[in-house]
Amino acid sequence: MTVDVVARLRERLGERIDTSPASLDAARADKSGHAASAPPLAVVHAASVADVQETLRIAHATGTPVVTRGAGTGLAGGANAGPGEIALSVRAMDRLVEVCPDDLLAVVEPGILNAELDRMLEPYGLWWPPDPASREISTVGGNIATGAGGLLCAKYGVVRDAVLAVDVVLSDGRLLKLGHRTVKGVTGLDLTSLVIGSEGTLGVIVGATLKLRRRSPFTPRTLTAVFPDVRAAARASAAVTASGAQPAIMELMDALSLAAVHRLLGLPAPAADAAQLTIQTDGPGADAEATQIAHVLAAAGGTVRVAADEAEAALLWRIRRSMHPAMETLGTTLIEDVSVPRSALPDMFDEIARIEAAYGIRIPTVCHAGDGNLHPNFVFDGPDVPPLIWEAAGDLFRAALALGGTLTGEHGVGVLKRRWLADELGEDQWELQRGIRRLFDPTGILNPGKVFAD
Amino acid sequence: MTVDVVARLRERLGERIDTSPASLDAARADKSGHAASAPPLAVVHAASVADVQETLRIAHATGTPVVTRGAGTGLAGGANAGPGEIALSVRAMDRLVEVCPDDLLAVVEPGILNAELDRMLEPYGLWWPPDPASREISTVGGNIATGAGGLLCAKYGVVRDAVLAVDVVLSDGRLLKLGHRTVKGVTGLDLTSLVIGSEGTLGVIVGATLKLRRRSPFTPRTLTAVFPDVRAAARASAAVTASGAQPAIMELMDALSLAAVHRLLGLPAPAADAAQLTIQTDGPGADAEATQIAHVLAAAGGTVRVAADEAEAALLWRIRRSMHPAMETLGTTLIEDVSVPRSALPDMFDEIARIEAAYGIRIPTVCHAGDGNLHPNFVFDGPDVPPLIWEAAGDLFRAALALGGTLTGEHGVGVLKRRWLADELGEDQWELQRGIRRLFDPTGILNPGKVFAD
Ligand SMILES: Cc1cc2nc3c(=O)[nH]c(=O)nc-3n(C[C@H](O)[C@H](O)[C@H](O)COP(=O)(O)OP(=O)(O)OC[C@H]3O[C@@H](n4cnc5c(N)ncnc54)[C@H](O)[C@@H]3O)c2cc1C
Ligand SMILES: Cc1cc2nc3c(=O)[nH]c(=O)nc-3n(C[C@H](O)[C@H](O)[C@H](O)COP(=O)(O)OP(=O)(O)OC[C@H]3O[C@@H](n4cnc5c(N)ncnc54)[C@H](O)[C@@H]3O)c2cc1C
Repeated sequence: MTVDVVARLRERLGERIDTSPASLDAARADKSGHAASAPPLAVVHAASVADVQETLRIAHATGTPVVTRGAGTGLAGGANAGPGEIALSVRAMDRLVEVCPDDLLAVVEPGILNAELDRMLEPYGLWWPPDPASREISTVGGNIATGAGGLLCAKYGVVRDAVLAVDVVLSDGRLLKLGHRTVKGVTGLDLTSLVIGSEGTLGVIVGATLKLRRRSPFTPRTLTAVFPDVRAAARASAAVTASGAQPAIMELMDALSLAAVHRLLGLPAPAADAAQLTIQTDGPGADAEATQIAHVLAAAGGTVRVAADEAEAALLWRIRRSMHPAMETLGTTLIEDVSVPRSALPDMFDEIARIEAAYGIRIPTVCHAGDGNLHPNFVFDGPDVPPLIWEAAGDLFRAALALGGTLTGEHGVGVLKRRWLADELGEDQWELQRGIRRLFDPTGILNPGKVFAD
Repeated sequence: MTVDVVARLRERLGERIDTSPASLDAARADKSGHAASAPPLAVVHAASVADVQETLRIAHATGTPVVTRGAGTGLAGGANAGPGEIALSVRAMDRLVEVCPDDLLAVVEPGILNAELDRMLEPYGLWWPPDPASREISTVGGNIATGAGGLLCAKYGVVRDAVLAVDVVLSDGRLLKLGHRTVKGVTGLDLTSLVIGSEGTLGVIVGATLKLRRRSPFTPRTLTAVFPDVRAAARASAAVTASGAQPAIMELMDALSLAAVHRLLGLPAPAADAAQLTIQTDGPGADAEATQIAHVLAAAGGTVRVAADEAEAALLWRIRRSMHPAMETLGTTLIEDVSVPRSALPDMFDEIARIEAAYGIRIPTVCHAGDGNLHPNFVFDGPDVPPLIWEAAGDLFRAALALGGTLTGEHGVGVLKRRWLADELGEDQWELQRGIRRLFDPTGILNPGKVFAD
């Protein structure tokens, strides 16, 4: 049976089928720190919609599970392919198919990298706003499949707000065209939104029509503010939001994160407990808004620094951008992703301090403060998440839910959070979601065991 | 059986059950010009979630269809309740439950009127942007159920962009809480988006968490431009979009519409064939942007007038706002709602001219030009849409689809457009949508015959 599937794939797709040990091994993992127990049957490097359809027809006929992969930068284990599964990579489908400046839209294949797309849009004066920190290395298809967020979300929205239509191959190989090219459209149920964030469980995204903006001709402004502790920084970020200012980016780093990054970059150590906000304003009012925000931050007890020029701004952003590498110097990291209403940020930081004390661990945390999305980093030794860390993470999830929050603001459920999914959704909604999944994929071959743990 | 249902409703819900002939008759129709052939069994005036749940439990147990109604201002016949059906009005559930300025959100009951909500938010300096022209008379629940649009959509989005969470009672009376209070959240499939625009076919919306903005302290600016014909006006609107300006509102009136309104308001008749754009800019750059747009319009051949003050602006808007009453003076109106990519607007006006010639009819058309959404008005005598008008409307829909457009930009499918639904969706997607509807409502008692014609 196993041999049969790979043979059939090869018969139809020839050199697109890759069973080299290195490729099989790479397909076991994404960037979550989690990996499948053993390699998949084969990696299919699809080059066209027809390749994807053919792969799914064979998978459907043989009952073989299919794990779709973009660039494998996910942080929830959603793209991890294991024994008996086909890893279907759409990374090679990376064309920008159409740009329509008049309608502010672009049509793309799923494998195009987010930042690559943006560079291709620049000559048209156009911009696709979604900017996950992984934009240089993640695919637009993966961004859509995870419903990715990023730094600019509070002002410019998430991926969900920037997709007009998706083409999807169903588990039996049929191609569906969902959504529309128009700004508005309410014909029937919104299946496009259903596919966004579905993490490969409903179908394979083989094309997308994206909603673009014009690039701004104005230079953004950057400022930072240092606070005596994280609670003060969180309160200051709430004060910025309450002031009516609309920063494009507002990032918070707690004391452990700040210290680790300063160490990594060889900068002088920050004061003990010091936490930092890094803020960017943009658009025609960038200067005025930066000044206004500087006042709010100072009034909230912050030591403010406004970057004099773009070079200094780049330096300030480098500190925030070095979080991921700084964590990697400390050990293996489980990057969490809870989100709470903005006003609950100070309380959520108190909960993190409580969990640190209760479990005897440290949890360096960065936060997209403009929209209430926190990334607490659980750091440990060795490849596997120890039970104590899982317990602490479970405690964190319950705390976020109790504050009116959610398990995952942008990374998705994958394998990492599936055991808590029903806690947030409730049994009735969980069952309904599983029902929808069965409707799209009656035999359950698309990313089984992910999200719904079925 | 019939008597049984009403008796059971009365037994449990007492005075909330209304079988007065006037109420039953009113429940037969919305504002589409269509009405059910005969009155429903009863109108339930639900005052609480429990009332809605009780109604649905009885309906479910007896297999009685339920038509949910907000204010009945819909333009697709979706709220029309007919023989053997229960009309479930949630209009009396009209409380503003919570306002949270720090998190820019509000929690409401479904029956609150859109404009009423906005007035209640004003003291907090907050604003719910969705602004259908019917905002004074339509409910927020109805706005969500239809996925309503409005005038400000190009800049501020549609209802879909302004809803974080919905509470929904399923056909068997169970209460589901979908969505989240956080800005970001990707836990499981996005059922909130699925309910938005579902026109009463998936469940009854009994509560919603809305995403607010701050009210702008800046005075908006208004300008109009008159063009020799509608094609020139459409091209000018595309030029405004292409210039990078972002008007808050950009409305187009064709010659027939403009003439009819001028007649109604007793204004001097416009030049033959003259069409008009009415534009509003807002925010800190309102003045500068108005000037910039005035140049673009003049360069495109328009005769531009910038309102000197708010009084003059109000006058200019009164012309656009009088479209609906002006049409009512001409006869019965079937208001259509196709949407096309913005660049296809001039072509769509050519198609309308072709259809007018082919069918020997006149089709006064207004258009949300900023987002490509047209409202062609088919005017006729008597209460029922004549077959010729239906044929012309079908022609219009096919033309819009051929230009990359959609059947309905904001009004929904209801009964009026259900026969064209599968044309736009394709059979596979249509079946999938029906499958989702069955999953939510296995016995098909929620708004049967609407949208899906099942
Ligand atoms: C350093 C770093 C920073 C990051 N920062 C952010 C951030 O700021 N915001 C954020 O949201 N995420 C962030 N991420 C997580 C990750 O980059 C995103 O989840 C991204 O959207 C995944 O894209 P990908 O192409 O790598 O998808 P993959 O990892 O390959 O896949 C992710 C999931 O989507 C599915 N999938 C992928 N492509 C398709 C397709 N075409 N059709 C159907 N299903 C598909 C997979 O099955 C899997 O479930 C970060 C990751 C790293 C390593
Ligand atoms: C003069 C005029 C101007 C208009 N302008 C616009 C415009 O600019 N943009 C626009 O989008 N629309 C416009 N409309 C159409 C209409 O106002 C909208 O569709 C509005 O959203 C309907 O709200 P309602 O409360 O009247 O809903 P109803 O007409 O009562 O119901 C509409 C549909 O929603 C369902 N429904 C209502 N409430 C609920 C609920 N709580 N739960 C589940 N289902 C429910 C009904 O079953 C029905 O299918 C206009 C109408 C008029 C008369």
